[in-house]
Amino acid sequence: MNSPFVSDVPAAEAHAAWREARAAAGCPARVETIRVPVGEAVGRVTAAPVWAQRSSPAFDSSAMDGIAVRASDTVGASETSPVVVTDFEVVDTGDPLPPGYDAVVMREHVHRTAEGAELHAAVPPYQHVRSIGEDISAAELLLPQGHRLRPVDVAACAAAGVVELAVRRAPVVAIIPTGDEIRPIGSELRPGEILDTNSLMLAAQAREAGCEARVTDVVVDDPDAITTALRAAAENADLVMLIAGSSAGRDDYTARVVASAGSVAVHGVAVRPGHPVVLGTAKGDPATPVLGVPGYPVSAALTFDIFAAPVLAELEGAAPRERPSTTARLARKLPSAFGMDDWVRVRLGRAQDQVVATPLPRGAGVLTSLVRADGLLLVPAGVEGHHAGSEVRVELLRGLSEINRTIVAIGSHDLVLDLAASALRAADPLITLASSNVGSLGGLVALRDGLCHIAGSHLLDPATGEYTLPYVDKLLGDGIAVIRLVHRDQGLIVAPGNPLGLKGIDDLTQPDLRYVNRQRGAGTRALLDYELNQRGIDPTTIPGYAREEHTHLAVAAAVAAGRADTGLGILAAARAFNLDFVPVAQEPYDLVLRTDDLSNDLLAPLWDLLSRPEFQAEVEALGGYSCAETGRRVR
Amino acid sequence: MNSPFVSDVPAAEAHAAWREARAAAGCPARVETIRVPVGEAVGRVTAAPVWAQRSSPAFDSSAMDGIAVRASDTVGASETSPVVVTDFEVVDTGDPLPPGYDAVVMREHVHRTAEGAELHAAVPPYQHVRSIGEDISAAELLLPQGHRLRPVDVAACAAAGVVELAVRRAPVVAIIPTGDEIRPIGSELRPGEILDTNSLMLAAQAREAGCEARVTDVVVDDPDAITTALRAAAENADLVMLIAGSSAGRDDYTARVVASAGSVAVHGVAVRPGHPVVLGTAKGDPATPVLGVPGYPVSAALTFDIFAAPVLAELEGAAPRERPSTTARLARKLPSAFGMDDWVRVRLGRAQDQVVATPLPRGAGVLTSLVRADGLLLVPAGVEGHHAGSEVRVELLRGLSEINRTIVAIGSHDLVLDLAASALRAADPLITLASSNVGSLGGLVALRDGLCHIAGSHLLDPATGEYTLPYVDKLLGDGIAVIRLVHRDQGLIVAPGNPLGLKGIDDLTQPDLRYVNRQRGAGTRALLDYELNQRGIDPTTIPGYAREEHTHLAVAAAVAAGRADTGLGILAAARAFNLDFVPVAQEPYDLVLRTDDLSNDLLAPLWDLLSRPEFQAEVEALGGYSCAETGRRVR
Repeated sequence: MNSPFVSDVPAAEAHAAWREARAAAGCPARVETIRVPVGEAVGRVTAAPVWAQRSSPAFDSSAMDGIAVRASDTVGASETSPVVVTDFEVVDTGDPLPPGYDAVVMREHVHRTAEGAELHAAVPPYQHVRSIGEDISAAELLLPQGHRLRPVDVAACAAAGVVELAVRRAPVVAIIPTGDEIRPIGSELRPGEILDTNSLMLAAQAREAGCEARVTDVVVDDPDAITTALRAAAENADLVMLIAGSSAGRDDYTARVVASAGSVAVHGVAVRPGHPVVLGTAKGDPATPVLGVPGYPVSAALTFDIFAAPVLAELEGAAPRERPSTTARLARKLPSAFGMDDWVRVRLGRAQDQVVATPLPRGAGVLTSLVRADGLLLVPAGVEGHHAGSEVRVELLRGLSEINRTIVAIGSHDLVLDLAASALRAADPLITLASSNVGSLGGLVALRDGLCHIAGSHLLDPATGEYTLPYVDKLLGDGIAVIRLVHRDQGLIVAPGNPLGLKGIDDLTQPDLRYVNRQRGAGTRALLDYELNQRGIDPTTIPGYAREEHTHLAVAAAVAAGRADTGLGILAAARAFNLDFVPVAQEPYDLVLRTDDLSNDLLAPLWDLLSRPEFQAEVEALGGYSCAETGRRVR
Repeated sequence: MNSPFVSDVPAAEAHAAWREARAAAGCPARVETIRVPVGEAVGRVTAAPVWAQRSSPAFDSSAMDGIAVRASDTVGASETSPVVVTDFEVVDTGDPLPPGYDAVVMREHVHRTAEGAELHAAVPPYQHVRSIGEDISAAELLLPQGHRLRPVDVAACAAAGVVELAVRRAPVVAIIPTGDEIRPIGSELRPGEILDTNSLMLAAQAREAGCEARVTDVVVDDPDAITTALRAAAENADLVMLIAGSSAGRDDYTARVVASAGSVAVHGVAVRPGHPVVLGTAKGDPATPVLGVPGYPVSAALTFDIFAAPVLAELEGAAPRERPSTTARLARKLPSAFGMDDWVRVRLGRAQDQVVATPLPRGAGVLTSLVRADGLLLVPAGVEGHHAGSEVRVELLRGLSEINRTIVAIGSHDLVLDLAASALRAADPLITLASSNVGSLGGLVALRDGLCHIAGSHLLDPATGEYTLPYVDKLLGDGIAVIRLVHRDQGLIVAPGNPLGLKGIDDLTQPDLRYVNRQRGAGTRALLDYELNQRGIDPTTIPGYAREEHTHLAVAAAVAAGRADTGLGILAAARAFNLDFVPVAQEPYDLVLRTDDLSNDLLAPLWDLLSRPEFQAEVEALGGYSCAETGRRVR
């Protein structure tokens, strides 16, 4: 159980093994039943069937505003021979039917005269009468056991005379962060330290699942200390989540600790991210399920969904909450390791009248891939991935109509798009602009394949020295429009004070220099290659040319961290990190789209925004941008 | 604005008119911005874009357990000529990359020897190194404005060094119940009084929407008192919901009160249920939106969804939460009034591999129709209903996989099915048995049309005196199995002590007797007709023969309320209301299903339950049931 290498138990087997281990250890099947007033029961799960205590409505009542009559008094009334009823009573909707009367005539159909009420039609008995018990009959089954209560449910219970409900109490989840390097949120970090964001997230996930969550202090990497913390937490919790230490490194004690505190059913599940999970129990009175949660944040989040949520729902005797899903077409090939359930985060967008799923970065450490995801796609263990264009089922993390209202931008990254996304949302909460950064060329290909509305591009053609348009001609052909977003300064991002005294591209061949490059297909990479070619410089002579980052900000971050001396990028990125900047070129950054989409209502707010002087002023204030041609159609 | 008849403004126009009125009156566009620690921000909406304050990870780190090396030291290593590296450092996943090293070799690929670490493959620089900023680059846009924060979002904010967030405070909803007949939950009711279940429900709906809800005391039907309460509530609320009084009856003051406190933009919307809604504002500093909510409970619940929820989301600057939806085939014809948005509650079930939607009772007073609904179907104002079998879009109120796991029973009502539903759920929270009561004949037709798994039937064939099987032959033909559920006693349900001294069917022709009948197609109705026919009694001679109720319990409720003297029904219904019972016949109640479904895994737990002695004992304890043949296949 404490083997250095964790196993690869298929998810279904892992669930079953943990269930058996919980039963064998004597973990309770359900949390206790409590009785609560109906007003406090929303979100809780019924612990017993709810039978109506009385009927609702509790009396026959008028279903209309009008008069209560005896149906027999109206016999023979018609348009040509009205009947005047003298014995009646005025009633409003909801009023009890006065004794002696058995029908109601709508006010609109009553002509009041000096003699009484003139009716032009006979009415049948019980017309417009709301019967006793129309909604609820006393003694009927109102709700089954195991039902999570919603506002309408508690209102119906109250109407049926049920003022208190037997429900399961909220399960309690104890969360124990571990690790010498883990610091509480808000700490100033020293090198090598990381913030305890997992406890924050897992506690919030537990609360969203209707549970009470308690987070302990961070426990150091010491088996005895962790065991003590685990035993203490298990005393008062229905599930203990022990964060990190579930891998097989030197300081990874979780499996050992859980084994000594109780039992380990599974160490290592064929699920990615989330592989080194530990499923076990801790002894006690009663025993408590323990979940060893991997420390990578995406692994932690998915481990909650896959392993904690079903157990917590089971403790309440309810079905786990489920996410809605949709089918989508896969934007590109999606390889997946055979034998592993692979949970892939995807962006979704509706373009060309279909929902398209674009996989996001798959690293277990990339929490922003989950933040930006619109959905989760499970590639099951038995499947070795999908071809581009395959139809796949995606669990939704955002509503489908919100996704349908999203402007999908794929291509080069630029801060102006981020600024536009925020400004659009501020003006109208229903608009989303989502950009995926795959470089200029990737954006044009995505547009060609119908995966996006707009592609941001600043791609220099070495043959002509012209930007973007030659590529549009070659790749996309007719029916394509190009709108100028901005002109922007590209240059060498350097440490404050430019310690190496770089003056331009010619200096990049300095032997001790550490360059950080952009990925192939990025416009900035094309610009560098063009500039090198103009000068006859062999790219392989530039130290670090092979090291690639995917955004301007990542290049600036590398320089800021001292991991590289320089990289080509935009002024705004240098400014964001308080770095210095050696200008190299000014380039146009354009938005490429289908001509048809120029009249697409979805995009109209974007064109409107680009034309606004206050937005242009905000862009130029970023530094290194010119809005002289912003919004101009250049093709 | 205070006309006696409310208008029929189309929903979209009503929304627009109210929006204009709110702006004109000076209602705030957004609630205030507050700053909260990330740990308390889940569920709130960002009031400003969130930019990363620092990169995450903040340092280069090992992505694997293994050793940190210099890539240049490994050049030339291969399976046939391993290289022994002497300068390395052992690292675990997440450890900072030690200075001087630029790559990591997985532990599995390292062979430790006396000399050092033997490698069988060269490694490229930065192999298995997790780069600084891999997840988040400082200064990147993490979240746009107007984003409702989820657990992953706050974790990402914390990782990016953002410990406090600018969010919109929770909107405050004030709820004012009005009406002389309204009593607080838990009150003992006198005739004509009703419980204030609407406040309970609306407050819970508001809290579910992320708002703070305050309910005032019930206000009597007095315009001055209501005006005073409205003005006071508006002082400290972002939206006031004034319940009932929005129709046009004598005591319906809402429109008048709102007009005097501010302005009425709309009185009456072309939406059903929910038609007599009032949309207005109340003067103040600032002015407050006011929503007059109709008193019928389904109207009240839908008014919240349709009118309150969008305004509350707008106040937070976010998109309203949206329900997932699915397409379904309509089980039967659905007429709808032209010119009215018609919100129809439907049950959903998967039978014959398609999702089928069966409309539930449409009365605005039938709250249980919303409790039992799996979905909401909007028939828009411009559509006059749908044909049976039409494909319709349904907003889901329950998860689709839960719906897929539901045993759908349509047919005659019997308490044993309710009991079975609860027992199945208690044993396994993932199983649902949903029964719709449409009478025996309706059930057989539903089974024929592929709308259900099982049809409960006790339908007597007058020609043969045999139950159910002749109808199965006639209607359904081959491929149908029939399983006996129970035998049960049918008889006359009478007031305690049997005041009219009824002895059997022959006594039903007593001139002053008030009979309450079951609907056509109900097995109990067929039984009555059979018994009358046997005796040569003309049904029209029975007073009340034309008055129909749809369940045994409704018949018993009518007798218990003194609204009828007797009706034919089962002993269990009489017992539920403490009534007396005059036995008339013992009849078999059967479950009819497709032979194919006998081996359907979904139904297996039901057959298992029926075979259990403890379940049979529970059934017989209800009284009037015999389980002698329970579970026997009779066809």
